[in-house]
Amino acid sequence: MRIALDTMGGDKAPYAMVEGAVLATQKMDIKVVLVGNEKPINKELSRHRYDLKKVEVCNATEIIEMHEPAAMSVRKKRDSSINVMVQLAKKNMVDAIISAGNTGAVVCSATLGLRMLEGIERPGIAIILPTLQGPCMLIDAGANIVPKPTHLLQYGIMGDLYLKEILKINSPRIGLLNVGEEECKGTTFIKDTYKLLENSELNFSGNVEGRDIFSGNYECIICDGFVGNVVLKISESLAEAIEILLRRHMRKGIMTTMGALLSRSALAALKKEVDYSEYGGAPLLGIDGCCIISHGRSSPKAIFNAIRVAKEYAYQNVNKHIVEVMKKMAVKQDT
Amino acid sequence: MRIALDTMGGDKAPYAMVEGAVLATQKMDIKVVLVGNEKPINKELSRHRYDLKKVEVCNATEIIEMHEPAAMSVRKKRDSSINVMVQLAKKNMVDAIISAGNTGAVVCSATLGLRMLEGIERPGIAIILPTLQGPCMLIDAGANIVPKPTHLLQYGIMGDLYLKEILKINSPRIGLLNVGEEECKGTTFIKDTYKLLENSELNFSGNVEGRDIFSGNYECIICDGFVGNVVLKISESLAEAIEILLRRHMRKGIMTTMGALLSRSALAALKKEVDYSEYGGAPLLGIDGCCIISHGRSSPKAIFNAIRVAKEYAYQNVNKHIVEVMKKMAVKQDT
Repeated sequence: MRIALDTMGGDKAPYAMVEGAVLATQKMDIKVVLVGNEKPINKELSRHRYDLKKVEVCNATEIIEMHEPAAMSVRKKRDSSINVMVQLAKKNMVDAIISAGNTGAVVCSATLGLRMLEGIERPGIAIILPTLQGPCMLIDAGANIVPKPTHLLQYGIMGDLYLKEILKINSPRIGLLNVGEEECKGTTFIKDTYKLLENSELNFSGNVEGRDIFSGNYECIICDGFVGNVVLKISESLAEAIEILLRRHMRKGIMTTMGALLSRSALAALKKEVDYSEYGGAPLLGIDGCCIISHGRSSPKAIFNAIRVAKEYAYQNVNKHIVEVMKKMAVKQDT
Repeated sequence: MRIALDTMGGDKAPYAMVEGAVLATQKMDIKVVLVGNEKPINKELSRHRYDLKKVEVCNATEIIEMHEPAAMSVRKKRDSSINVMVQLAKKNMVDAIISAGNTGAVVCSATLGLRMLEGIERPGIAIILPTLQGPCMLIDAGANIVPKPTHLLQYGIMGDLYLKEILKINSPRIGLLNVGEEECKGTTFIKDTYKLLENSELNFSGNVEGRDIFSGNYECIICDGFVGNVVLKISESLAEAIEILLRRHMRKGIMTTMGALLSRSALAALKKEVDYSEYGGAPLLGIDGCCIISHGRSSPKAIFNAIRVAKEYAYQNVNKHIVEVMKKMAVKQDT
């Protein structure tokens, strides 16, 4: 198993990427290809002890910065770490690719370079959100901000198969994010998507409101990439804001300060539960390959976990099964 | 000052409405008109001591249930508490109206019955979200799920005036909710709205991401009603979910249980800070009148606060100033 890692993308690059990769090679039976400017990568590597057979550096002379326009930079910066990584996957020199860099550029480069799976029209970013009862997958978190109803149906099919094969969830309950539970609610786009999901073979559980996401009553929630991106970023920041507010209040009195000291482990456990670095990265479902998108603020631990996710994804046959289901659907529609 | 209260709407109706209204008449110089089925209202009233001159009951024989389709039920149930309340406002028999009932029906009935302010095309629900540095107003939380860019500009103008006059914020920073900070990001709808806001006289601070909402760096955030509704419901539920998770962890060890007891006041303070009942209700901006939409789960305290918000809104000249600004803009466009 060979995994390429964009070592130049993310706020903590290259340090977090190199440290996460070294950690992963120590714990997993994989080889990591560090893609990016070899000078800083080798400098970071020199701080670590690692198995020379399990870590390789692949030079890329350019970097796509976080705020560059995606499509243009992918076209212009041919030798950027993101593009070089995608080319490695295209040539089957690696089994999976990971980036914490410019998300738009990763989506664009992977889509152009690796193409879509047969029957899938658009890729979708599948994030895992913590809930009161285990994880919930939300698709799409921002790959496709003006989707068609068929794209959302395809997200449902891909999410269903991913959850079954990777997370071993038997019959994932799929919800459609809407402004109300009733079938009559929402925009024309949402109503059309509802009909497609209802007539599919998925375990479609109807409309889901914002308040249902964290209930844990759904294993997979489908939405357009605009709404999904807002949901992802709010969830992260609200959890952080609540922690800050709580610590602020806890510092106010002697009794509560003591309480804070004693309940530190509870706060730490909570933090772990809502900490997105635990989940490592979000698979970009729909492309003909295995691509994991990590958080821009990824720590070494987050990169380690992203490598774990990439390994599991590449090891399972999710993509193969997606193509099989899409072919069956096409046959059904033809007859 | 006379305020009409839909006594039949909301999960805790009529008990919470009657108790909240009685409380408000004790603390404020107002008269509350309880609109709804007079039998249960009088029964609830009999449990309280109150000033007979400050509480009045106005009978309405029908109720629009929470899950009924809005437009149809407003047309069919002429004598519903929502419609009767709107008619009271139309006849200038009350200065403000409040409902914790079917939001869609309230928006529909108020829009049809009271009409829009001159120059405003669509109403918007303006909710207050707690942040790390004071409140942040978000418009629209669900009145208008397929808006045009001009509607969002109008939300900006109305939010700006509301914040200046009611919350005494000098020059509110207005943000546009988007998937990225750069001007090039987002859908065509968002890009067109960006241009309108940029060319307005508002203190427009550019695009805002989901993660910026709770930072407190913006006093007013503009978005379409679909996204706004999801944001509102997620914020409420995530705060609740975190509290449940934290309590769960705190129960796990003796030390953390002690810690939990000692830090109870901090948790209570946090709860108060993220408790939406503190904010009472959301003004429905844009209609020619003063309408407050309360949370379906409103407690007596929430209703009390909604009456306070309604009183302030009706007392100030927000609507008058909105019309003045819109007229000035129209003159400018003509020349």
